[in-house]
Amino acid sequence: MAESFDMRGVDGVVVQKPAEVVALKPNEVRVKITHTGVCGTDLFYVQYGCALGHEGVGIIEEVGSAVKLHKVGDRVGGGYLRSSCGSCTYCLTGRDILCYSRDCYGMASFSNGTFGTYYIGTESYVYPIPESLPSEFAAPLQCAGATVYAALKAYSRPGLRVGVLGIGGLGHLAIQFAAKSGAETVVFSTSASKEEEARGFGASEFVILGHEDQLTKPVDVLLITAAKSPEWTTFMSEKVVARGAQIVVLGAIAETLELPFSSLFFNCYNVVTNLVASRATHGEMLNFAAAHNIKPVIEEFELNEAGVADAISKLKSGKLRYRAVLHV
Amino acid sequence: MAESFDMRGVDGVVVQKPAEVVALKPNEVRVKITHTGVCGTDLFYVQYGCALGHEGVGIIEEVGSAVKLHKVGDRVGGGYLRSSCGSCTYCLTGRDILCYSRDCYGMASFSNGTFGTYYIGTESYVYPIPESLPSEFAAPLQCAGATVYAALKAYSRPGLRVGVLGIGGLGHLAIQFAAKSGAETVVFSTSASKEEEARGFGASEFVILGHEDQLTKPVDVLLITAAKSPEWTTFMSEKVVARGAQIVVLGAIAETLELPFSSLFFNCYNVVTNLVASRATHGEMLNFAAAHNIKPVIEEFELNEAGVADAISKLKSGKLRYRAVLHV
Repeated sequence: MAESFDMRGVDGVVVQKPAEVVALKPNEVRVKITHTGVCGTDLFYVQYGCALGHEGVGIIEEVGSAVKLHKVGDRVGGGYLRSSCGSCTYCLTGRDILCYSRDCYGMASFSNGTFGTYYIGTESYVYPIPESLPSEFAAPLQCAGATVYAALKAYSRPGLRVGVLGIGGLGHLAIQFAAKSGAETVVFSTSASKEEEARGFGASEFVILGHEDQLTKPVDVLLITAAKSPEWTTFMSEKVVARGAQIVVLGAIAETLELPFSSLFFNCYNVVTNLVASRATHGEMLNFAAAHNIKPVIEEFELNEAGVADAISKLKSGKLRYRAVLHV
Repeated sequence: MAESFDMRGVDGVVVQKPAEVVALKPNEVRVKITHTGVCGTDLFYVQYGCALGHEGVGIIEEVGSAVKLHKVGDRVGGGYLRSSCGSCTYCLTGRDILCYSRDCYGMASFSNGTFGTYYIGTESYVYPIPESLPSEFAAPLQCAGATVYAALKAYSRPGLRVGVLGIGGLGHLAIQFAAKSGAETVVFSTSASKEEEARGFGASEFVILGHEDQLTKPVDVLLITAAKSPEWTTFMSEKVVARGAQIVVLGAIAETLELPFSSLFFNCYNVVTNLVASRATHGEMLNFAAAHNIKPVIEEFELNEAGVADAISKLKSGKLRYRAVLHV
């Protein structure tokens, strides 16, 4: 087997380090990474020194003795949810992402990232990539795509209007998934310059923040994909967000959510969150993306120290359009 | 028709005032009030000078020309939701409490309270009182009962564990409705002295705040019926409230809800609210209460200035057990 490396934060800088190639357990597969997305969550974990990366795509190079779902040579993706118990109520009802024994990126498996030579996945936690979906586009779907799709699956229904606040790594995918699921999709953005692109993603309505009075009707579901808390007096107004709506917070927008109680209460909003996706939803999302030709907009960088440094620098600058992908 | 009065706040004090007896619209009924509950919401509206009271029960004395649902002599209750448009999506899907044209207590109908001689109700917004349910017990169900029942109907399901935080006007009814709907019902309280009574209401488990480690399992739904925000680090811990749980805020616990984002996000809690009840749920609640012998614990006062003053004073003191009812 080839020399192996992973990437970890050391004193705040991501460095490439030799990685041990450990033996597979019977139900594990060794994925030779070809592409991996870069997510805000990776930046958070730099300080902890774990092997970075959780939006991996690659080719299975070795399978454990008991693996039935995949074979050597298969193209698969994964990286956020790594295991769950399989027998609790959550696992038995398709909500394995909530399992109390879950292992997710940044938790127990500290030496298994997708910024590296290999990612080891338990067989049912890596997902076949549909043939029509190129690996560089499949990578950001493993976390960003799964996150927005799971939220839509939980809260959107035919006939509802979906609002997307923010056009970034999550938002530009949310617009596509919402539009392709048939929803009137309303994009809220600070920047008029993004209207054409938002409409290209499928937005049926584009509203510049501060001009919410131009909205034709309130939205029934709001996905907050921005990086900071919105002006709640706007997004808890029944003229912008319909009474009884789900307000789904998808990113780490604040250490403390400060919500105006009266608006929340009298409009009966549900403030909900969503953490990536359980397995059934994750696999379904990839097929949905392939069927509807949903693709992230990406900027590619090489999977080495310089490439990671460039990608992180651009991500931090806010100028990345819209997801960085590292490739070998 | 007899002399008529209502009660309104004047400079912070509730005074009895002569009230005009207005002619009924075709679809309205005139209810001669015999009993009315006193709710924290009434205290809030004292400052606004509107006719107080929204948990009324009485006998229909007159019906409008088009009324089909009730007749003179019927015993009915109501008072919070007064009207809705009847044709919007909310109204057409049993969520009339969310109707943008709703009129609720304290909103448009400022001269129509249940602390008075008469309450005028639009026919489908007053509800028959089941025969076995005495009027003094039926009164607090019109808001407090409707509120907790609607929350349970929305979020509880067979097999779930329901937590009730706070034993007061709402909480002591929430325990009864939850237990009678078959849920393991866990009561969280500051006061060990309330355990016996909580178990009498149907609590299967009683946890004193600060001793949450004694909880046998986390709750799947949490009803916050307390008057102030709980310690969120406790009630957003997955050891106390299960991942993915609905945390239902039923009272005005703060002007700004301050929620720790990381716990909310990684445990995927849904923070939701509930405003009294739509009509179908309200009527159903009264039948459920009668069928299961659910009764509020009440203290009775006379429906006059002195009685209201006493009731309000006791409510403010926190010593009321558990709902004040004014009677003629």
